[in-house]
Amino acid sequence: MASGTGKDSGKNPAGPEGIPEPAVRRLSLYLRELENFRANNRKTVSSRELGDALGLTDAQVRKDFGYFGQFGQPGIGYQVEELVGQLRRILGTDRVWNVAVIGQGNLGRALTAYRGFLRKGFQIVAVFDDDPDKVGQVIPSLESIRVQHIRELKKTAADKWIRLAILAVPAEYAQPVAEQCVAAGIQGILNFAPVSLTAPAEVAVTSVDLAVQLEQLAFRVLGSPPRF
Amino acid sequence: MASGTGKDSGKNPAGPEGIPEPAVRRLSLYLRELENFRANNRKTVSSRELGDALGLTDAQVRKDFGYFGQFGQPGIGYQVEELVGQLRRILGTDRVWNVAVIGQGNLGRALTAYRGFLRKGFQIVAVFDDDPDKVGQVIPSLESIRVQHIRELKKTAADKWIRLAILAVPAEYAQPVAEQCVAAGIQGILNFAPVSLTAPAEVAVTSVDLAVQLEQLAFRVLGSPPRF
Repeated sequence: MASGTGKDSGKNPAGPEGIPEPAVRRLSLYLRELENFRANNRKTVSSRELGDALGLTDAQVRKDFGYFGQFGQPGIGYQVEELVGQLRRILGTDRVWNVAVIGQGNLGRALTAYRGFLRKGFQIVAVFDDDPDKVGQVIPSLESIRVQHIRELKKTAADKWIRLAILAVPAEYAQPVAEQCVAAGIQGILNFAPVSLTAPAEVAVTSVDLAVQLEQLAFRVLGSPPRF
Repeated sequence: MASGTGKDSGKNPAGPEGIPEPAVRRLSLYLRELENFRANNRKTVSSRELGDALGLTDAQVRKDFGYFGQFGQPGIGYQVEELVGQLRRILGTDRVWNVAVIGQGNLGRALTAYRGFLRKGFQIVAVFDDDPDKVGQVIPSLESIRVQHIRELKKTAADKWIRLAILAVPAEYAQPVAEQCVAAGIQGILNFAPVSLTAPAEVAVTSVDLAVQLEQLAFRVLGSPPRF
């Protein structure tokens, strides 16, 4: 469900420098696997091993890396530590990104508490809602952060250098809230509401519709008879 | 992050009948937009209107539908109600699917409570964890369901005709739990753990790595200077 800027159509446009979006997407998966290899104290890894871990051919791995530069050495493979650093620099996760979560329903609270974001360098520094019962509450997982009213978004985004927002609001609020994000100078929106958002071309929007993911899975299962 | 059966590699393989996966993915988005048109009492809709709602050309819309049959009529467009029914039949959401959620951490609880699933015909009928503090607890959003121990998965999956599982377990448990799903006859796994799962070809696996989604968004934002 990743998508280009503006309308998020589910198409696969080219990435920032004309690189196919599937190759960029796989870069994140290579990085994740490399971090696993590193956790297992591996110093070097071959394109075949990396491919095997992801169900890809070694040729695909080399082709994908070829879009971004020259990394490995024939016969030796890739230096794990070095390649982790290079991929992080390419993907932008060699720094900390300040992130806002908007919406503190079940999903918004779960996303706020999700530890996987911080491991990648995404730090949730502000949380918003418009429900008076929620505004002012302390976030259990984040010391010293309280839920703020959405009307404070613009000021807080400027004060805290927030560049990315995670939207977990009901469908009917998603477009107006996205517009508030745009007005607040936010550059990227990860949208969990089941709607297609419209945003200016300079604001990146990615939508993850959880029910659509399940629907797509069902479609793939559909043709198969029950297994037992 | 949707993917083929077996290893979920982030590639875009052809769908069940050789239909490109992006076209299948867009089918879900067309359906979502058509349901919006229907909610607004629209009887017919053109490929252009449907495309506009998603940032696609009308030619793309017609091409995508062309993979699945002949739907609209030139000059009249598509009958909204009829097309909703046809797309649901194609996608398999014209019936109820029984689903298990495995893992009752923050994300698992949020997914269990997510109302968007039921609207698409996905009914969560069982919830599992292996934490003795959680097993036996009542699920607030689902009357009469209690968290069961994961060891009851196989029996419950058979008793309740569970075909799909949502995995929201820590990364290190994802592969063994996926294997328990396979052993329990489950046909499709929607995996939220940040790992690539291995499963037999007859079991469909889709992975949604939330941190990877944010990383991909950051990559698209990376080249842009701060907006304010």
